[in-house]
Amino acid sequence: MTELAERYPLLSGIQGPSDLGDLSDEDLESLCEEVRQAIIDTVAQTGGHLGASLGTVELTVALHAELESPRDRILWDVGHQAYGHKLLTGRLEGFDTLRQYGGTSGFLRRVESEHDVMGAGHASTSISYAVGLAEAQRHSGQDDSQVVAVIGDGALTGGMAYEGLNQAGALGSPIKVILNDNGFSISQNVGALSRMFQRVRVDPTLTKYREDLERNLSRIPGATGIGSTLRDAIKSQWFEPGALFEALGFAYVGPVDGHDLKAVRNALRAVKDMDRPVLVHLHTVKGKGYAPAEAHGEAMHGATPFSVESGQAKKKSSGGPPAYTEVFGKALVAEAERDPRVVGVTAAMLKGTGMQHMMDRFPDRTYDVGIAEQHGAVFACGLAIAGYRPVVAIYSTFLQRAFDPIVHDAAIQELPVIFAIDRGGLVGDDGPTHHGVFDLAYLRGVPGMTIMAPKDEAELVNMLHTALRIDGPVAFRYPRGAGVGVDLPERPEVLPIGKAEVLETGQRVALIGYGFGATLAAQSADLVADGLGARPTVVNARFCKPIDAHLMRQLAARHDLLVTIEDHVEHGGFGSAVLEELEDVPGRLLRIAVPDRFIDHGKRELLLEEVGLTPESVAERTIGALEAPAGIMRTG
Amino acid sequence: MTELAERYPLLSGIQGPSDLGDLSDEDLESLCEEVRQAIIDTVAQTGGHLGASLGTVELTVALHAELESPRDRILWDVGHQAYGHKLLTGRLEGFDTLRQYGGTSGFLRRVESEHDVMGAGHASTSISYAVGLAEAQRHSGQDDSQVVAVIGDGALTGGMAYEGLNQAGALGSPIKVILNDNGFSISQNVGALSRMFQRVRVDPTLTKYREDLERNLSRIPGATGIGSTLRDAIKSQWFEPGALFEALGFAYVGPVDGHDLKAVRNALRAVKDMDRPVLVHLHTVKGKGYAPAEAHGEAMHGATPFSVESGQAKKKSSGGPPAYTEVFGKALVAEAERDPRVVGVTAAMLKGTGMQHMMDRFPDRTYDVGIAEQHGAVFACGLAIAGYRPVVAIYSTFLQRAFDPIVHDAAIQELPVIFAIDRGGLVGDDGPTHHGVFDLAYLRGVPGMTIMAPKDEAELVNMLHTALRIDGPVAFRYPRGAGVGVDLPERPEVLPIGKAEVLETGQRVALIGYGFGATLAAQSADLVADGLGARPTVVNARFCKPIDAHLMRQLAARHDLLVTIEDHVEHGGFGSAVLEELEDVPGRLLRIAVPDRFIDHGKRELLLEEVGLTPESVAERTIGALEAPAGIMRTG
Repeated sequence: MTELAERYPLLSGIQGPSDLGDLSDEDLESLCEEVRQAIIDTVAQTGGHLGASLGTVELTVALHAELESPRDRILWDVGHQAYGHKLLTGRLEGFDTLRQYGGTSGFLRRVESEHDVMGAGHASTSISYAVGLAEAQRHSGQDDSQVVAVIGDGALTGGMAYEGLNQAGALGSPIKVILNDNGFSISQNVGALSRMFQRVRVDPTLTKYREDLERNLSRIPGATGIGSTLRDAIKSQWFEPGALFEALGFAYVGPVDGHDLKAVRNALRAVKDMDRPVLVHLHTVKGKGYAPAEAHGEAMHGATPFSVESGQAKKKSSGGPPAYTEVFGKALVAEAERDPRVVGVTAAMLKGTGMQHMMDRFPDRTYDVGIAEQHGAVFACGLAIAGYRPVVAIYSTFLQRAFDPIVHDAAIQELPVIFAIDRGGLVGDDGPTHHGVFDLAYLRGVPGMTIMAPKDEAELVNMLHTALRIDGPVAFRYPRGAGVGVDLPERPEVLPIGKAEVLETGQRVALIGYGFGATLAAQSADLVADGLGARPTVVNARFCKPIDAHLMRQLAARHDLLVTIEDHVEHGGFGSAVLEELEDVPGRLLRIAVPDRFIDHGKRELLLEEVGLTPESVAERTIGALEAPAGIMRTG
Repeated sequence: MTELAERYPLLSGIQGPSDLGDLSDEDLESLCEEVRQAIIDTVAQTGGHLGASLGTVELTVALHAELESPRDRILWDVGHQAYGHKLLTGRLEGFDTLRQYGGTSGFLRRVESEHDVMGAGHASTSISYAVGLAEAQRHSGQDDSQVVAVIGDGALTGGMAYEGLNQAGALGSPIKVILNDNGFSISQNVGALSRMFQRVRVDPTLTKYREDLERNLSRIPGATGIGSTLRDAIKSQWFEPGALFEALGFAYVGPVDGHDLKAVRNALRAVKDMDRPVLVHLHTVKGKGYAPAEAHGEAMHGATPFSVESGQAKKKSSGGPPAYTEVFGKALVAEAERDPRVVGVTAAMLKGTGMQHMMDRFPDRTYDVGIAEQHGAVFACGLAIAGYRPVVAIYSTFLQRAFDPIVHDAAIQELPVIFAIDRGGLVGDDGPTHHGVFDLAYLRGVPGMTIMAPKDEAELVNMLHTALRIDGPVAFRYPRGAGVGVDLPERPEVLPIGKAEVLETGQRVALIGYGFGATLAAQSADLVADGLGARPTVVNARFCKPIDAHLMRQLAARHDLLVTIEDHVEHGGFGSAVLEELEDVPGRLLRIAVPDRFIDHGKRELLLEEVGLTPESVAERTIGALEAPAGIMRTG
């Protein structure tokens, strides 16, 4: 008997969803406990999205018991609540490699299993997929299989979810939307819709009042003639979430206790044959069944490895350098202390972006708009029009959703909105949907943007300070994880706009780094010098736009080779900016960047090694390029 | 007496909104007629957004009569319905330059008037601005002025509007949202919400039934005790749109006849002092008061110059080459005839993208998702997962909203979704919010994308055909306006992926054009030859990704200068792709592209001349660059 079979006697026997048919109701309840335990055991080792997946255990078992995946399509929005789905679809073995390099992904991926109908990582896409799949089924005449989207109340704050509901309602698509309402997006959930859910959830008098009202009405002579119409009217009044979805053309069922396996299964059976859009509203508890996760919703959303007994993170902060995120958050508070025009905006990432510091100190000047990056950016433009200085902190990958507002609202109107782009570069464990490697490409073409990146955490403080003094849109990006360990400035400085910093003047080759690339350039200098027999020039670019054109031309004139270094895709990034500046200069350049393919998940250090963003690789490629004949020789 | 004073005796006396205070109710009614007439007279000459602006005349007069702009903030979503607002805010003089080069913008712009609080052009942003401005007023203590967003039912299909409503409801922002419900986005409006609006609008029995019900209830003994609760419940049932907005925390007022000036003014007065979010639902008629515009909603949305008497467009199609849009639309139908997997998707632009041809022929396989580009792209991914071949036709500028789905959904999952990017390059009259000049920059970095552009309309047909045979995401772009007049292929060909087409082999300089740039390269060859005394090489790049690396290296080896030509911003476009490919080749390149600033509105030809995208300018710059010393000489 293997270790897995010992620990998870029922679960280890499940090769796929069809095996659930053999289990009794009692066994299914036990299976829930095993799934929950497997999730806790694993995430305690690997880290991961604990709370969300614990909250969907009963739903997951119910879905696979009632449906026939993959014939029936189960679509998990974001996918971070789907660890249970992985465990029931043949992935218990190997689950201990969750989020590890080469191992199981922390999200769903089409290449990983036929049961992963769609891949995801960003929120609010599942309903749109569902409508597409339902239409495809209609076209191909396979309209007896079901399409079910599972979406959290957090993801429902994203406008795309609403766009999807609106089309589903119009088409009458027979999709089932399971609203997994746990009162959280990632931070505590925000928005009017959420507040209403909350009211339905916590106010028992509402239910009681409704019952009284119905009873009284039934006793009123003449009221019977009004019939179901009135009942519907009352229902829509007391279940306001229902009213909202019904207005969009959905039938509404709920709320249902999402941890009552039987109730969830009954609800799924009840809606199974409904030939129209249906929304089933579940109440669940984030972190359900594991006390520390229930108590600390946001902290245990994306958990680092922890002790199962105490729920405490294993790795205490080691006294090393602070994270860029923390440095940013505190620097923002300091700026806000000095300047009452400074306000903070984030999109469901108060802790993740360090904006929690601002919220703690200036709750009135800090906004969490929910998973609504487009709105967040335009909302900030509104504040800027009125003279405020909004600082919008969003991860690079999620800022992709705000690209149009950046062009159409901030840039065209020359508004001083600051985009603090956290998680620039490779982020590690979350993988390809989360790497922030496109921001230079999509921002660099936008007229009037100032774009920068710091070489260390002290420069980050100065860049925020500088950004607040620029009369137009600004973006600066910084990586995930710890700074390099330099002292922070006591008083931040204003950096000269468009000027790079020469860290060392050498010869033959100039290493020009941008952001993390500058850190790396400095770290590579000794190795390059060893191989070359001469010290290279080392430059911290600071600005990608405006770029330091004068210096770039000087460097080109005085070196045999320029090497640009950046943790951004190789097309359209910082290296391309240098090439553009030197288009009329016959010279040679080597761009060291993230290669043109999607990079999988794994520890950031491993990924950096994989793509050659290490001092050793930089040195090797630099020396190789210097020694190689120019490309023209190879093809002439 | 000036001509304006003669034609518009009341309107010509209005220097700004404050002058409306002097007018009687009767005069205001007359003013509406003058505003309407001025719009018709002008747009008949200039072309422009006729229908939308005619539908808001009474609303505009009511808003400026009841509010004090610019102290009170009036936010016009998109801004194409705001010609009346321009006329009442001191812009009658000069209004005849509407959408002309150097003249009045067709949208609102902050630089044009202090009454233009926000600039726009893309839909669904106004509520987000309103929430930002309301928060700013709260911070600064100026909470007695009003913030009013005017948004159409079409723009309400955009998810950002919902994100804004959700935050407004949560904050309790005292904003007023005027829903200008004319049953259109640009095409006939779509979506469940719209259908519901329609029901309220057209079904008089609903109103009657509601009245009967209320009367009956009031006669039931005992029902009084239920009081306003029941009334509310009934109201939310019968005014479902109200229920939706009320669920999001808004008070709902309406529907109001948007052409009854007194009724609109009363509604504005009624909500003026409400210290919470309010939505006022107006019913309006697109094109109101001008029969041809009322009858032809989509055709007269963006009207070309027309005869006021007949409503007929002045310039009949001259028998010249067909527009790229038309060629695409018909080619798509031809592909769909051959391949049942082909489906069409557009976002509120059936006619604008040529998708109407597909809708006419295959209504069941054609989807207009509304102004919901994000959802449209992901919906297409759902269809692709199920084996279909969706072709998503969206203007370049609006596709910016779908950037994240392109990365996160189409590309990471390697789904065969085809993005047909209409209006690539400078679009002309609509100006900076509509130029499609960023698409290469944001798409080129995305791994696995195939990116192309045709040199003429025949190649467009072949590119669609080719795209349908590529097993991954594809984008191709083409410009606004007529093709070059070549014959269309009888049977489309599959183009070799990543291979450019050498149009002419010459010497010294190679002109390498991408899309419209290739058209221009061919047109410039004679002039370059004249100046140079030798024929240049001329290349149609066809592909930006994968780029024809082998050819680019050959060209670099065999010429003194490469010139890239494209109608895309100079940072991150096709020229940058060539530079990247040649980074290790000492040589010189000249990128001819759209300069790094926002380009105003005006006829496309004038704009192309302004930015140097003409044969004359290409020849002049090419010869100048060949004669100049290399840049390195200038700075060494």
